[in-house]
Amino acid sequence: MASTPASDYKLSFGLWTVGWTAQDQFGSASRPEFEPWEYLPKLKEAGASGVTFHDDDVAPFGTDDSAREKYFTRFKEVADEVGLKVEMVTTNTFSHPVFKDGGLTSNDRSVRRFGLRKLLRNVDRAAEFGAETFVMWGGREGAEYDGSKDLFAAHERYAEGVDTIASYIKDKGYDLRIALEPKPNEPRGDIFLPTIGHALGFIAKLEHGDIVGLNPETGHEQMAGLNFTHGIAQALWAGKLFHIDLNGQRSIKYDQDLVFGHGELASAFFTIDLLVNGFPGGGPSYDGWLHFDYKPSRTDYVQGIWDSAKANVEMVTMLADKAKAFRADPEVQAALKASGVYELGESTLAAGESLTDFLADTSTYESFDVDKAAERDYGFVNLNQLAMKHLIG
Amino acid sequence: MASTPASDYKLSFGLWTVGWTAQDQFGSASRPEFEPWEYLPKLKEAGASGVTFHDDDVAPFGTDDSAREKYFTRFKEVADEVGLKVEMVTTNTFSHPVFKDGGLTSNDRSVRRFGLRKLLRNVDRAAEFGAETFVMWGGREGAEYDGSKDLFAAHERYAEGVDTIASYIKDKGYDLRIALEPKPNEPRGDIFLPTIGHALGFIAKLEHGDIVGLNPETGHEQMAGLNFTHGIAQALWAGKLFHIDLNGQRSIKYDQDLVFGHGELASAFFTIDLLVNGFPGGGPSYDGWLHFDYKPSRTDYVQGIWDSAKANVEMVTMLADKAKAFRADPEVQAALKASGVYELGESTLAAGESLTDFLADTSTYESFDVDKAAERDYGFVNLNQLAMKHLIG
Amino acid sequence: MASTPASDYKLSFGLWTVGWTAQDQFGSASRPEFEPWEYLPKLKEAGASGVTFHDDDVAPFGTDDSAREKYFTRFKEVADEVGLKVEMVTTNTFSHPVFKDGGLTSNDRSVRRFGLRKLLRNVDRAAEFGAETFVMWGGREGAEYDGSKDLFAAHERYAEGVDTIASYIKDKGYDLRIALEPKPNEPRGDIFLPTIGHALGFIAKLEHGDIVGLNPETGHEQMAGLNFTHGIAQALWAGKLFHIDLNGQRSIKYDQDLVFGHGELASAFFTIDLLVNGFPGGGPSYDGWLHFDYKPSRTDYVQGIWDSAKANVEMVTMLADKAKAFRADPEVQAALKASGVYELGESTLAAGESLTDFLADTSTYESFDVDKAAERDYGFVNLNQLAMKHLIG
Amino acid sequence: MASTPASDYKLSFGLWTVGWTAQDQFGSASRPEFEPWEYLPKLKEAGASGVTFHDDDVAPFGTDDSAREKYFTRFKEVADEVGLKVEMVTTNTFSHPVFKDGGLTSNDRSVRRFGLRKLLRNVDRAAEFGAETFVMWGGREGAEYDGSKDLFAAHERYAEGVDTIASYIKDKGYDLRIALEPKPNEPRGDIFLPTIGHALGFIAKLEHGDIVGLNPETGHEQMAGLNFTHGIAQALWAGKLFHIDLNGQRSIKYDQDLVFGHGELASAFFTIDLLVNGFPGGGPSYDGWLHFDYKPSRTDYVQGIWDSAKANVEMVTMLADKAKAFRADPEVQAALKASGVYELGESTLAAGESLTDFLADTSTYESFDVDKAAERDYGFVNLNQLAMKHLIG
Repeated sequence: MASTPASDYKLSFGLWTVGWTAQDQFGSASRPEFEPWEYLPKLKEAGASGVTFHDDDVAPFGTDDSAREKYFTRFKEVADEVGLKVEMVTTNTFSHPVFKDGGLTSNDRSVRRFGLRKLLRNVDRAAEFGAETFVMWGGREGAEYDGSKDLFAAHERYAEGVDTIASYIKDKGYDLRIALEPKPNEPRGDIFLPTIGHALGFIAKLEHGDIVGLNPETGHEQMAGLNFTHGIAQALWAGKLFHIDLNGQRSIKYDQDLVFGHGELASAFFTIDLLVNGFPGGGPSYDGWLHFDYKPSRTDYVQGIWDSAKANVEMVTMLADKAKAFRADPEVQAALKASGVYELGESTLAAGESLTDFLADTSTYESFDVDKAAERDYGFVNLNQLAMKHLIG
Repeated sequence: MASTPASDYKLSFGLWTVGWTAQDQFGSASRPEFEPWEYLPKLKEAGASGVTFHDDDVAPFGTDDSAREKYFTRFKEVADEVGLKVEMVTTNTFSHPVFKDGGLTSNDRSVRRFGLRKLLRNVDRAAEFGAETFVMWGGREGAEYDGSKDLFAAHERYAEGVDTIASYIKDKGYDLRIALEPKPNEPRGDIFLPTIGHALGFIAKLEHGDIVGLNPETGHEQMAGLNFTHGIAQALWAGKLFHIDLNGQRSIKYDQDLVFGHGELASAFFTIDLLVNGFPGGGPSYDGWLHFDYKPSRTDYVQGIWDSAKANVEMVTMLADKAKAFRADPEVQAALKASGVYELGESTLAAGESLTDFLADTSTYESFDVDKAAERDYGFVNLNQLAMKHLIG
Repeated sequence: MASTPASDYKLSFGLWTVGWTAQDQFGSASRPEFEPWEYLPKLKEAGASGVTFHDDDVAPFGTDDSAREKYFTRFKEVADEVGLKVEMVTTNTFSHPVFKDGGLTSNDRSVRRFGLRKLLRNVDRAAEFGAETFVMWGGREGAEYDGSKDLFAAHERYAEGVDTIASYIKDKGYDLRIALEPKPNEPRGDIFLPTIGHALGFIAKLEHGDIVGLNPETGHEQMAGLNFTHGIAQALWAGKLFHIDLNGQRSIKYDQDLVFGHGELASAFFTIDLLVNGFPGGGPSYDGWLHFDYKPSRTDYVQGIWDSAKANVEMVTMLADKAKAFRADPEVQAALKASGVYELGESTLAAGESLTDFLADTSTYESFDVDKAAERDYGFVNLNQLAMKHLIG
Repeated sequence: MASTPASDYKLSFGLWTVGWTAQDQFGSASRPEFEPWEYLPKLKEAGASGVTFHDDDVAPFGTDDSAREKYFTRFKEVADEVGLKVEMVTTNTFSHPVFKDGGLTSNDRSVRRFGLRKLLRNVDRAAEFGAETFVMWGGREGAEYDGSKDLFAAHERYAEGVDTIASYIKDKGYDLRIALEPKPNEPRGDIFLPTIGHALGFIAKLEHGDIVGLNPETGHEQMAGLNFTHGIAQALWAGKLFHIDLNGQRSIKYDQDLVFGHGELASAFFTIDLLVNGFPGGGPSYDGWLHFDYKPSRTDYVQGIWDSAKANVEMVTMLADKAKAFRADPEVQAALKASGVYELGESTLAAGESLTDFLADTSTYESFDVDKAAERDYGFVNLNQLAMKHLIG
């Protein structure tokens, strides 16, 4: 089978990924820093057609307004030249110590006001640059100690903040949607909206939730031991998968931000299978950007930045090819059928069947042969082994 | 301070907790089985005023209808005699192998129909017994392999099932609410609706979500490394904390079901603090049952059943006393204030402040002294140490 | 490249794997039970050349001696007929409730004596059947509560038990080695000797440690978030990798016992790479059995038993082929060299270099250009991407 | 009961703990930096009688030799004035990017040589300052990718490094012991010697292992889901608990370094119980320093440094008081006896009982009533509840 070219996918990278100089909790930077726009040509070369950034990635926190505009102007010029779309913009409300207790849920109201203004300012930038998505990762919204927060107030303030931003977007008429990025912990002991689910529940209570969705990240869900493919499936079911962050994580530990596919490989395969092939029986599908939010390993130097960027693209491309072949294989289709995967698409009550009819259907309960039904062999191991053969065969 | 008597709380136990004969994944039962009603007097004696059960706990799966009625009649008689309210009823859709791929989301439609009938039948029982809550734990709704489910269809079927039950409750006019119980894994590799958050997001999409809420369990959230107190706080914020399962868990591993407070003790303290004292700044509070869903250790024999039941009651009582003294302590109140805990209750925008006003307030951003604001000492460690002194001092 | 036939590897299965009827913590058996010997022909057909068992897998606990001999005789006859070697024997000291607090470290001395006798009796059986390895998994040796054990005495008793068995083996002149199987938890809250490391440390203190080594299991180490390949490498370095249990696990949760390779796939690749290719620079290698200790999924029926057994064999065979091609690839060899993988084989001090010489070598410290050395690009991401391309390419 | 004064314990702090300016993976420093000696008077005031440091904590990496001596001289002077003993010294082989692939196991031999020299140089400092213990935390010794290391060579080099240092200590006649500090991950994906157990196994293979032991850290073991009290108990049993790092961790996640007792409280109680009371039945006990290796929360400012330092001391003091009262309580002693805790101290074979005698004792096996023995109620829940009552009652 001819491989699908990378250019068939909308691939983008965060500027902070290749731009990470590898200072970590236990050590100083291992790589030099370049000007923001210097990363762009090589991102394009690696296979990207989009780029994203935090406000402070382009113009450092505290830069005065005139210098600030120069940074952004230069960045946009180079992005245009190179042919990279600024598809998403996000805001840094976590690095400066003013945000040490959060941006929208800091116990300090003056910090919340400052944080909200920083966010709104960046909404303008996002709109100006033609971004489709405004990602919000509230990495410092949280606590280490249960007593340090009024947890009702925290949710109220979080909702107030997001609703204010959404309302601003609507007022301005921007063609922009907000995507919340959940994470369970790190840098806070417990972060608010720790998983895809918590964010979905939160959005449902917003006044302007119609333009608020999710930007789930592979590793963030896996840090809670959760199945990433299940998570994005629920987000799709809820109509809320607005953007996605792909990377790699190995088991429950600190946030690793490995190359996509360099974490749990079989899980990455099924993630891509869902993203490129959709659900087996149809339903909502994702047609947004495949965005990489990873970190080049600290052990690698400048060459390693670009090796790792390309590795992300290669992994998606290879996995997409595998996933397409998997679904197209008649043996797989037969196995999916035998396992009842399509049967799950049939409603439990028949079309038009009333509750009264259902309760009167003795074949369903009173005379149902449970022991015989229990003997059904779902063949899930066989089906998974077929997937493994496609993946590594 | 005089201790609050246990009778001040509405405490209940699942029949399957004290009734667990301690057969586990690796070994056979270590304790004898008694008739369902034989547990009731001792539950009362341990401090309970309520009892709950799965249908199959009272009348074994497959019992014919006439024998079945005898079981339930006898059980209700004794519960009434003893003075235990059947406050919640739940349904076993996980033990019999017919449910090996789930009850409401099995790939086999005939199983889904059977499961739904079993659930509806048990709704009638719950209503008949005067239960307030109908808990649904979908322990077999899930998968080990990402390919074995159409994940869109799975959520559709799950919603169809819950909505059908909710609609039935409404049609019948029962005074009963559904409470979903999330769990991340075990017995399935990944269970659908793995956390409080996922269930909240799911409920928001239901047609009859108004009578559907949550029954979160301490250990289930902790199995995903999540903060239980944060989780129930979000459920309260969403108006969905319908019921609660208290128990103990130590770190991320198999479901331990220890006595409440025999897991993470400081977390248990703050859970009880929230349940008995509410949020520091007010807001919705929980006035439902404190329900124990734990297992007497397999190493203990019959005496251990009752020692452990009493230990649950003692832990809640002791922690509630501590939590009340903690909140009442002027030093704690001052520390909460210094830490900004009450300040989080103030809205970020002032009452009546428009977005235009806010954007024009230069003191908020343009002239805001971030470096000075960053120097605020939130005093969270001091506040937590005060809590620890109250807890163990 | 022609695939390596499965028959090139010494593959064996535990009788309890295919024989698991799928009763679990939350449900009853989903598959029928067959006579122990009925599994043997199909194991052979699946690709095994060896079989292993717990004493109670062949003759149920409590079987009287004459019936017991019949079971074992029949089993051995069929194993011989079919051509399956009994390569390992292990003892069940965890299922009967008498062992609820352990076999060798139970607080009850009479239980310890009984457990030790059961073990010694099974040593005779292992020797009689020509097994090479006597595996000891102390699944009930542990605790839920830190206060319930004298932890010094527990280690003393554990050592006494293992040393007594080792001494018995030596006295009898049996050609048998003991292999301890670590596990962090489940069914106990904390199991003694929770990881490969703890068992290595324990063995080093034994009197008869020379014939005591390890039987590490993939999923058991991964349940503690540990790298299985690293673990078996340390065991090999210590000369203690006596046997191995291959299976699959996904992240930190209950013990899943999936098919090998159906858990963390990239990790499985490197495990097989080490087992079939050895360390890159030479050193001790493993030439023992590749033993599968997994469970056919409870959702599958009888066909699923054999699908899953074959899947294990296929995974090992496919991964071994991939691993061989990976190592043979000149691009990979060049990348290994560039990454310094072979350089790690060079001793840090030169052959014959004294401490005095070393301390006097200013090029090593005083004039060493740390900043330049820090710029080395180890190329680890590139190397891993080459591995991924071999694995799924 | 009168409280035990803090001065009864040998309490020490790492200089890097109170000196942490709170720069983390996601943000810049939130606190000012003081001169190293400026922390000392307040440490004394907080209750410490000892202090420890990494070489680079006192004199920054790269400081020239003459400036370096000034730093150390001044530090020692102030420590002496204040009355703080330098009880332990450790070496930073993880912050500078030259160590990005490790110090003793870097794939780059020139880095290994540099690292070893830095370590040896610091041994001299430790001896000069009268330290008793030389801690080695190999935080960068490890890998993210299984293919990036020759794992045999890695263990060889690690052993070469530690043995070289130990041999140097012996040659010099220093009264100093090495203590290895295990950690499972962070900052590397997998760190070598990830747990207490792995380090014990490693030490057993060293040539100079007699002066090499352990410095286990509470949170590091808990990051692997392991029981810290069990871990230090095995280290004591092996005669290898040379030093200890106390702090707090909540579940399996990034390394939190909370105040001791602000993590898992019940576990902290039993840790202190073991450290101050010893094993119930006697055996080796710990008489070394109780060393705090924690971080003041980033949300706190300068006051928070000292609040948190004092909180550590208070927690140890309070827990020690509780633990002593627990052990002294006759009801607890009776419960320990009933649970068989002392019985575990009795050898399984009687003194002088030969294997032949044991095998001939039919009361032990042939006529042993297993079902009756299985009915023993170990009373572990009751015993744990007594502990909880002492802890919070």
